[in-house]
Amino acid sequence: SRDLCIDQAVVFIEDAMQYRSISHRMDAGSMRLYRCYYSNACQRILNFTIFCILALAFIETPCSLTKTADVRYRSLHWEPPCGLTEGVEGLCLLVFMADVSVKGFLVGRAQFQRNVWLLAYIVVLAVSLVDWTVSLCLLCQERLRIRRLLRPFFLLQNSSMMKKTLKCIRWSLPEMASVGLLLVVHLCLFTIFGTLLFTVGEEDEHEKKERLTYFQNLLDAFTSLLVLLTTANNPDVMIPVYSENRAYAIFFIVFTLIGSLFLMNLLTAIIYNQFRGYLMKSLQTSLFRRRLGTRAAYEVLWLPRAVLTGGFPSHRVGVMPQDFLQVLEKAQLSSSQKQAIMEKVRSLDGVLLSADEFQKIFSEVDRGVVREHPPRPCYQSPLLQSAQFLFGHHYFDYLGNCITLANLVSICVFLVLDEDVAPSDRDNFVLGVLNCVFIMYYLLELLLKAFALGPWGYLSYPENLFDGLVTLALLVLEILTLAVYGFPYRGWYPEMRGLLSLWDMMRLVNILIVFRFLRIIPNMKLMAVVARTILGLVQNLRAFGGILVVVYYVFAILGINLFQGVIVAPGNDSLAHDNGSAPCGSFEQLEYWANNFDDFAVSARGPLPHRDILEEPKEEELMHRLRNHPHVRLCR
Amino acid sequence: SRDLCIDQAVVFIEDAMQYRSISHRMDAGSMRLYRCYYSNACQRILNFTIFCILALAFIETPCSLTKTADVRYRSLHWEPPCGLTEGVEGLCLLVFMADVSVKGFLVGRAQFQRNVWLLAYIVVLAVSLVDWTVSLCLLCQERLRIRRLLRPFFLLQNSSMMKKTLKCIRWSLPEMASVGLLLVVHLCLFTIFGTLLFTVGEEDEHEKKERLTYFQNLLDAFTSLLVLLTTANNPDVMIPVYSENRAYAIFFIVFTLIGSLFLMNLLTAIIYNQFRGYLMKSLQTSLFRRRLGTRAAYEVLWLPRAVLTGGFPSHRVGVMPQDFLQVLEKAQLSSSQKQAIMEKVRSLDGVLLSADEFQKIFSEVDRGVVREHPPRPCYQSPLLQSAQFLFGHHYFDYLGNCITLANLVSICVFLVLDEDVAPSDRDNFVLGVLNCVFIMYYLLELLLKAFALGPWGYLSYPENLFDGLVTLALLVLEILTLAVYGFPYRGWYPEMRGLLSLWDMMRLVNILIVFRFLRIIPNMKLMAVVARTILGLVQNLRAFGGILVVVYYVFAILGINLFQGVIVAPGNDSLAHDNGSAPCGSFEQLEYWANNFDDFAVSARGPLPHRDILEEPKEEELMHRLRNHPHVRLCR
Repeated sequence: SRDLCIDQAVVFIEDAMQYRSISHRMDAGSMRLYRCYYSNACQRILNFTIFCILALAFIETPCSLTKTADVRYRSLHWEPPCGLTEGVEGLCLLVFMADVSVKGFLVGRAQFQRNVWLLAYIVVLAVSLVDWTVSLCLLCQERLRIRRLLRPFFLLQNSSMMKKTLKCIRWSLPEMASVGLLLVVHLCLFTIFGTLLFTVGEEDEHEKKERLTYFQNLLDAFTSLLVLLTTANNPDVMIPVYSENRAYAIFFIVFTLIGSLFLMNLLTAIIYNQFRGYLMKSLQTSLFRRRLGTRAAYEVLWLPRAVLTGGFPSHRVGVMPQDFLQVLEKAQLSSSQKQAIMEKVRSLDGVLLSADEFQKIFSEVDRGVVREHPPRPCYQSPLLQSAQFLFGHHYFDYLGNCITLANLVSICVFLVLDEDVAPSDRDNFVLGVLNCVFIMYYLLELLLKAFALGPWGYLSYPENLFDGLVTLALLVLEILTLAVYGFPYRGWYPEMRGLLSLWDMMRLVNILIVFRFLRIIPNMKLMAVVARTILGLVQNLRAFGGILVVVYYVFAILGINLFQGVIVAPGNDSLAHDNGSAPCGSFEQLEYWANNFDDFAVSARGPLPHRDILEEPKEEELMHRLRNHPHVRLCR
Repeated sequence: SRDLCIDQAVVFIEDAMQYRSISHRMDAGSMRLYRCYYSNACQRILNFTIFCILALAFIETPCSLTKTADVRYRSLHWEPPCGLTEGVEGLCLLVFMADVSVKGFLVGRAQFQRNVWLLAYIVVLAVSLVDWTVSLCLLCQERLRIRRLLRPFFLLQNSSMMKKTLKCIRWSLPEMASVGLLLVVHLCLFTIFGTLLFTVGEEDEHEKKERLTYFQNLLDAFTSLLVLLTTANNPDVMIPVYSENRAYAIFFIVFTLIGSLFLMNLLTAIIYNQFRGYLMKSLQTSLFRRRLGTRAAYEVLWLPRAVLTGGFPSHRVGVMPQDFLQVLEKAQLSSSQKQAIMEKVRSLDGVLLSADEFQKIFSEVDRGVVREHPPRPCYQSPLLQSAQFLFGHHYFDYLGNCITLANLVSICVFLVLDEDVAPSDRDNFVLGVLNCVFIMYYLLELLLKAFALGPWGYLSYPENLFDGLVTLALLVLEILTLAVYGFPYRGWYPEMRGLLSLWDMMRLVNILIVFRFLRIIPNMKLMAVVARTILGLVQNLRAFGGILVVVYYVFAILGINLFQGVIVAPGNDSLAHDNGSAPCGSFEQLEYWANNFDDFAVSARGPLPHRDILEEPKEEELMHRLRNHPHVRLCR
């Protein structure tokens, strides 16, 4: 029974660290399954499956693996053989079926029936399976695949943060809708105004027709003004009537002021406020889950024990550090967190831990582990010591930055100088020599820094890692270039040997050098702050990114179904003089041939709650929740 | 001496109510001048002078009073005779000279020398005068007029709120500049990347040339990406390379993500934060000025006096209400404020006012005076009473709104029906009759409401005022139409009689009806809130509006000086088939002929500080300031 309690504490602590709910089965067998399900391997398999099923859209008919999307130059789509993508999809669906059954089993029947997401998961899976069977029966010849539209659901249901964001969007819909309504009223009124103002009287027809380009009828006027809200057609829509009478500009100024400046910004402000409040609240829930988990672990671990207070024996309640250590040993936490907690517990040497102290240990860990760099190597010789001081100093970094900047400037100078020379006539001698010299310096810098900080010390700085990797890539490229094309000489013209031409090699080297210039970011204070802010934003906005991916995905699939093949490549004769024949602003004149509906954008996924300045949950709330938990009582 | 103190108190209270500084001369003569200077009449003259000198730009050569700005259709500019605008300008400058001398005299020599704005005022006036003299000497033939660029200064210096805003902009410049620098670095790096990525190799020339439309050289690439930051050329800039290889889209996606989404929004957030903080601080200063003014008034008014506390005579210090009333009687405050304060003071019947009570009376007034509507008339007859109940009920308003909506719909229906009919062939019979009926209803509604609420009660609601005015205008128009064109009959075709054709009359009526539809705004809760928010914004953003006017003005004048006459009307032959010959996207093809540099936008002025949730200034601070004031002591 004591072992079961220890195991339960392990599960509770893992739940707490991952901000998971503790409402699930807690018997020995279920716990083994639970820990296995939430183990890194299983979760990675699940994530990979979700990635696979989403990525399938790139390979399925119509396949997106052509070099260009331009209907004029595009090669024929590769048709995957029937059964290939369906086979992969079948495997994915199998994994999801296993996922939903394990999840359903673990949360128990009562929780399962209340969980809308799990029920929806089953429905989506069932529909997908039926659709998949139909697909196979029709030998992949069916036009409509409903299951493609449903796929983003698997991404949604697997992320608690994305579910929260979705709920938040649903909650702010009424407010957004009311400002949306205002916008519509604003648009409608101005549409009627505009149509009445800019109608053609009984005067000269030719001149007046022009005035009506954007205000022919109510629908045209509405569309024009709707686009004007985004300022996309800003001067154009005004030009015909403005060139008639300059007072007409007032109409457009008033419209833009009210619509774009006030109402659109009001919408932004409302969305911002709603989201901030709601996200704060949902992060609070995450924190509450963590507190609940740790408290539950405490509840199953505590033991009464006699202690000496002021020479008299008395009873005190608490967790024994050795129990705690045993739990920590078993729990799957990140190694740095585990290390920090265990050191803390060991430093208590045998004193019972109260509930408060127990909680405190976990909140301490959350403050973030400061990463320490390995110590610098100690050299004996004073010469080596002064060299170490010199090359380990941050002025040496600045020198490196200056040299990188000089390299960048040299590339720019050659870009400007060779602007009018055809690429095949360019003499790469000087730039080749310069790049050679610079790359030698970069290598030297790398070695000297590694000498000064020690190899591990060098690698412990992320900026050095970046720097080193790019430098090594540069070195490899340069050696390859020299090996294939020999040392630079006057008239080192671009020519083709092997995989890449000298021209492309040089471009690649130059691009890498520009890329290497990014190492200055941590050296400039402001840039570092902004870069860190942006990285933090990306972290915190991952859930939003996920929602965006879902929306993009659904619209891309819808677009393919609706508009595939609508854009047809122009005939040969119109291709020859398309600029002359097509009216300005038309699809043909703008050559938007690559803008069709045969592919779509998808990007990475991954949601994790972050922690902000949140209120601490109250003790009573925690205890109230725990009193209703059936498994915590078992251990008492 | 007591009279002088009363007068000083009057001036202090006026200063307080207008948030003015109290550091100025306080002897009897100066005070008379001061009150005269800040009287409504003098300030109106000054404001009108500023308006005049700014508005001169419309009339001066090149005169903006043509109907259209289109170089193809524009009539010749009217040339004002030499001396006309210069005469007006001379008068304005005379007023400003009087203004600066009065201001300088009133603040005293010490203050004057420390006041940068006043010194700059004198310099600007001197330069303007010299320039004006040169103009007159050259008989208005000079090309460059520096004084036109300096004119917005008169607007700036006359408004304390605009000066504060300007200071705020100056303070936030460093932060903005640093993010601006980041943007520049971002742009530069991507420019070099882009130029290296999208260069032409040694392949087929024709196909590749196209790829280089936007990335020919460093400068072109920089411009393209700079415009891409605003998303103005969003798909176009990407199309040539994207149609070559779809992977190139990643370059543009990353650029837009970092540039437009992160850095631009970061800039907005920084500006927002800086301004909020600084404006709050400067509004605090305004509040402090008010407190200081009222406290100073208290200090010159208080008298020691024996009062009975608990049956024993004791001394208490305070202001006698009759003195206060005397001061209020003399002070120039808005009548509603004055009324409220005087009632408050009278209700104290003779008790001495302490400093706190004195301050409190003024802050009470600031809370806003609730406007009361006059009582409804009382009718004797029960029939009239029930009619009054019926037509005074807000359901009657709703009925009116519904009828207005119906009218709007009928106009829309006719707009759609007559879409394809030439205006001269349209039969206005049905619409004419409908409008007639509706206008009769509007008149009836007006009369019934006036009957129910009484004439003054009716006018006390701003929405009724708006409604009534528009209805009256509609009535006048309708009567005019009927008088000139007779009653509507089948085939009531538009024709020309008198000033306006029937067609134009009908349009005007329709536009007014759409305009009248705005009366629904106060009836819809959300709309009313948004409308009030927008009105409040307009009030509070007046200072920013003023700064914008200044910037627009200066750039408009600069534009005229630099680019006047650069855009030349096309010859007759190119006018005939301009769409065919001009390349797409060019000035000629887009017919931007009206976009030249011969006129500019100017708008209203007027700054007043508003009051937000501000901290109250501390008692000690006030007293510390007053202790250093030379004139408050005189009365003690």
